[in-house]
Parts: sequence; C-alpha cells; structure tokens
Amino acid sequence: MNYPWPDIGTPLDQVATPMPVIDEDRLAANIARAQDYLDSHGKAFRPHIKTHKIAAIAHRQVEAGAIGINCQKVTEAEVFAAAGFDDILITYNILGAAKLARLKALNGRVPKLSVVADSETTVNGLDATFDADRPLTVLVECDTGGRRCGVQTPDAAAALAQRIAAAPGLRFAGLLTYPAAGGAAEVEAFIVGTMALLAEQGIDCPVRSNGGSPDLFSAHLVPSATEHRAGTYVYNDRSMVRAGHCTADDLAMHILATVVSRPAPDRAVLDCGSKALTSDLLGFTDYGAIEGYEGARIVSLSEEHAVVDLGGCAAGFPGIGAMVKVVPNHTCVVTNLFDRMVFHRDGIVTRVETVDARGTVW
Amino acid sequence: MNYPWPDIGTPLDQVATPMPVIDEDRLAANIARAQDYLDSHGKAFRPHIKTHKIAAIAHRQVEAGAIGINCQKVTEAEVFAAAGFDDILITYNILGAAKLARLKALNGRVPKLSVVADSETTVNGLDATFDADRPLTVLVECDTGGRRCGVQTPDAAAALAQRIAAAPGLRFAGLLTYPAAGGAAEVEAFIVGTMALLAEQGIDCPVRSNGGSPDLFSAHLVPSATEHRAGTYVYNDRSMVRAGHCTADDLAMHILATVVSRPAPDRAVLDCGSKALTSDLLGFTDYGAIEGYEGARIVSLSEEHAVVDLGGCAAGFPGIGAMVKVVPNHTCVVTNLFDRMVFHRDGIVTRVETVDARGTVW
Repeated sequence: MNYPWPDIGTPLDQVATPMPVIDEDRLAANIARAQDYLDSHGKAFRPHIKTHKIAAIAHRQVEAGAIGINCQKVTEAEVFAAAGFDDILITYNILGAAKLARLKALNGRVPKLSVVADSETTVNGLDATFDADRPLTVLVECDTGGRRCGVQTPDAAAALAQRIAAAPGLRFAGLLTYPAAGGAAEVEAFIVGTMALLAEQGIDCPVRSNGGSPDLFSAHLVPSATEHRAGTYVYNDRSMVRAGHCTADDLAMHILATVVSRPAPDRAVLDCGSKALTSDLLGFTDYGAIEGYEGARIVSLSEEHAVVDLGGCAAGFPGIGAMVKVVPNHTCVVTNLFDRMVFHRDGIVTRVETVDARGTVW
Repeated sequence: MNYPWPDIGTPLDQVATPMPVIDEDRLAANIARAQDYLDSHGKAFRPHIKTHKIAAIAHRQVEAGAIGINCQKVTEAEVFAAAGFDDILITYNILGAAKLARLKALNGRVPKLSVVADSETTVNGLDATFDADRPLTVLVECDTGGRRCGVQTPDAAAALAQRIAAAPGLRFAGLLTYPAAGGAAEVEAFIVGTMALLAEQGIDCPVRSNGGSPDLFSAHLVPSATEHRAGTYVYNDRSMVRAGHCTADDLAMHILATVVSRPAPDRAVLDCGSKALTSDLLGFTDYGAIEGYEGARIVSLSEEHAVVDLGGCAAGFPGIGAMVKVVPNHTCVVTNLFDRMVFHRDGIVTRVETVDARGTVW
C-alpha cells in the first residue's frame, strides 16, 4: 500500500495524521545523557530495543557506548542479529521445542547471546538444547519487588545458578532483575545476598543486571549492579514526566493528530484512536496529553477517534482541521503499531525509518 | 523475517505462542447469523472490516449477502478497493488536502464510495474537491447518544443535509449514527425527526445507517433504519459475552499463550502482553479471560508478559510450558497487532491470511 509517509524536508504541519514523530535532537540528547550518567558511575549500559524496534537507533546507542542490546523475544533478537548486533541479551524464559531450536541457531550467529531463566523447567529445556561446543550464557532472573517473573529469594537464585553452572551446555553469568516497584535497597540486598551464597559455592557471578527507565538515573543506588537496562528513556513519555524521571523538554515522541469534529461546545474529536495511541493508561485516567492545552482531556478512545473533554479549556481549543501534538502515555506500545517512524529536526522531516522489529512478539 | 506462522494441518497445541487463532466454523456461523437476522428484518447489512482487516473475510461477508463494506480511514478503504470491493462507506470526516486528493482518486476507482460529514468544515472541503462529473456520496453523521462525532439535533442534521444537497460535486444520501450508549428510541426519534424536516425541504433521504455490534440483534427496534453496520460480531470477544450479545460458543478468536513462569504460589506469567492482547479494558478490571480457569485473573500486562493472579484457582492452573487460551477483551485491536492471522477448524490450522489493512490509520 502507498502509505503517506512524508518525504524528507516536509514541514511537520504538512505531515499526514495521525503520525508519531521523533525529535532527532531530543533522541540524541536522551541517548547521550543516559550513557554519560552510567559511564560516570562505572556501570555498563544495555538499552532495551522494545521502545523503538529500529536498528538505526540501536546502532546510535551502541556507538554512544552501550555494551550491547536487550531484546524481549526470540524473533525480536533475530531481527537485531540480522542487523549486525553482536551482544544481545533476551530477558525472557525461552520455552518449547520450536523457540529453543531457533534460539540455538541464533546462538550460532551471535557472538555474545544470553538469556534468563527463573525456573528449573526453563533451565531443563535450555540444558537439553545446548552443548559444550557452543554453550549458551544464562542469567538467573530475580524478583526484587517487581512481582512479575523471577525467583523469590537469594536461596532460590543460588540454587538455580548452581543448576545452570552444572549444565555442560550452559554458562552461568550472573543475576538479572527488573525492579519496578521495589526500591534500590531491596535490589541491592537480593544481589549481595545471592552473591554471598554463590561465593560459598565457588560460583563466579560477573554480571548483575538491573533495569528499567524509572530506575535509570538512580542506578548508582545499587552499587552491586554491573549493568543497567532501559528502553523508554530513549523517547520518554507522559508517564516518565509525571514520575519526575524527565521533563517535557526530553519528550522525543509526539503523535501528530487532527481535530476532525467539534460536535458540542465541551467536546472535540481527534483522528488518533487506540490504533494510534494504544489504550495504555499507566496510572493515568486519560489517554495522552495534548501539548499546549492542559485543560483538555482525552477521556475516551475508540479505534480511530479520541474524544476530548474541553471542560477545562473550551475557549482556546483548535477548530476542525487544525493539528495538535499528543504526548502518549507510553511510547513503547505506539512503536509497535506503525510500520515506519518519522523523524524530524526543528519541525522538518529528516528521515523515515522502518520499525524493523514491529510485531515480533514470538 | 521468518516469523513462525504455522503450516496448514498443524495442530493448535503445536502453534507458536502468543498467537491469535480464528475458529473457521464460529466465524462462518457469526457471519451467517447476523446476515440472516438482518435479512429477516428487511435491513441491509454493511460489515465494518476494522475487526478483521482481511479481504478474504470481507468477501465471505459480501457473499453471505452484505451490500458492501464499512471502513474507517482512507488507507483502509484503499486496501479493500484494491481487493475488489465496489461499495465502500468510510464513516469518517475526511479533512485536509492530502486525504481529500486520495479520496477523490479512490472515488474514481470505486463504483459506490460514500463518506460521512458532521460539520460545515468537512462539507466545505469535500465540496471544493469533488465535481458533478464524478460526485461523492455523503451521509450526515448524527450523535444519537454515543457522544463521539455527529451533529447534535435533527435541525442541525437537516441543515447540513441541505448544504450537501446544494453542492454540485456532492450527493446527499442519508443519515448515519453510531448509537453506543443511546437507546433505540433515541436513534429512531432522531432519524424520524430529521426525515420530517428533510421532507419539508423536498430532500430525499434513502439511506439511514445504524450501527454497532452491541446493537446488531436489536436493529429491528429502529424501524426507520435501512441498514446496519457492525464489525466485532464477526469474531466476538469477552465484552460481547459479558453484555449478553453472544455466548462463549460464538467466540471465534482466542489468543494461544504459554505459561512462562510460576514465580509464586499465587502468580503465573503468560507470554502474551500488551503487544499481543492490547490494554483495552472495555469496562473490565482485567485484561482477558483464560478459558477453563475462571478464578485466574490477568491483573497486569507489560509489553510481553501477562501477570495472572491465581488467588481464585491456584490448585489447578497449568504449569510452566503449558498452553492456555485467552479470550481477549476486544478483538478489533488485537487484529491490528499481527501481520497475519491463523485460522483453524477443530483445532487444526486451515489457513494463514495476511491482515491486509493492518496499520492503516491514516
């Protein structure tokens, strides 16, 4: 299909809507700021590509000093392996014959490939797949307060590490956590406690990988961590601003949208629905912020419409046909809706990149 | 990328997860039931293709007796025009030079193309684009309780109809509503009231298009409507079952998922996150139902993980590596995440169709 991606040089006010656009300078600044911060604290950086899914951006992240990248699924990693990345961590329990076969093939192509495991079942599958000729590097995923995946205690982590270390086809490399709600102290205590147990067993634990954009600029509060992983920081979003992790000046993604209806004095309708913004709330009660119109609230989405309650700013809101800029609640999910992403500098389109790993959830 | 779409003949328990799958027999039954119902009430049926975005399914809908199809965006309509559909209604205010130029070209290719308008601004743009050589058919969109787009009163509808009827390049064809929360009586009163005003002006109003899957099987309660539009009915989903519009036996889409972690006694994690299910709640407080495990609740999603609270059914929930079937809250948004869709009959894969109009939000 001849989709209306803009030509290079197009002013943003002539871009077809709805369309997410990425500010080149803010993107570059976000990449540099995170790398500089982690460099200054002596920690390695491993950006999570889920937020952009674009090889060209990941190359910039590595050029800036990242040691490698973080993917979440096997197919996502395959796309980035094909784009030349040689150090990929898949932070997922890989299960089942089909995925394990693909993972084994991937391990033959990627110089440094690693995965995580949080159960004997996962380790058993990896153990049965890999051999000493080309072992797979495995980290133990730990639950340090995020309450998603992960072993629950340092004892369980050490036991699983021992199981991995004993497998001829696997190489135990360390610990990984996605802390989310947990505080730095809980993360540090879990890592230090596990390392003490591993030391007693004579098992080396060189990698301690902490993660998350919300915890990026407090990574120094977990001294035992050797690396940090983060995805959202590269674009940022409304949830990051609200939490104080960045300012509005650090928002690299906006969704350009057009007012398509003003049916009532207190209501406007935009052409960006849940198929452009997603329904991710991340704790908000509305579906994105409209830049420059704080009183206007996107109170509901249908698939191709955003309904805006103008109760707070009826007088000044733009009329039908005017363009507005929406700050999405969550950028990482917007990325996965569009086949390409439009970049600009000072409001002029600079490039249009394919979202290389769009739709790779397997 | 070599994505793991299954071969024809693959049993569903060997399909790569997460993967939405469509039950052929339920799909066919849903298509037939809706068409039979509307036939029996003498109403035309115009399925909305947003739910599946697959030309092969739309062809089945038309073969069953639908008069044409309903699209929401210009690019969506372009895809279906290229697939041979000759009667397409775009239920959207089309604005701006770029979209209007594409719409004009589309009107030259599609024998019966129509759009809606709910404002003078929209009509002015259409009026400036089309001419008497190849006029565009326009319906007036009415707000009969849905509180999205649409003129607010029969007086406003009649005035806008008059404006359309007076434009040489436009042909006024009737009224359209998406009723949502509004009841049948409100829809009927709005249509009848507007038709009376139009009759006074001598303006013909042959089409009265009502819509929505929730109102599909009560379409007979709006006697003045000549056609009904519906999308979700073709797959159905959890929200349709809850509202009593279908039963669990009418659910044509499930998302196959794998248990990837059992980190704690009351918690399981599935491999279908918001990039497979979306975060659409549609009034629910959880993100989908797990078939056969009513007490298990998907309480949170991250992009590639679904966290399941087993508080209600810890004892019997499957272990790591087992497959479960998730009923999505909302099927129409799941469609837009996957490049292809897998179909099956009695658990054996029958075909894999490209989601032709995935990502067409322009």
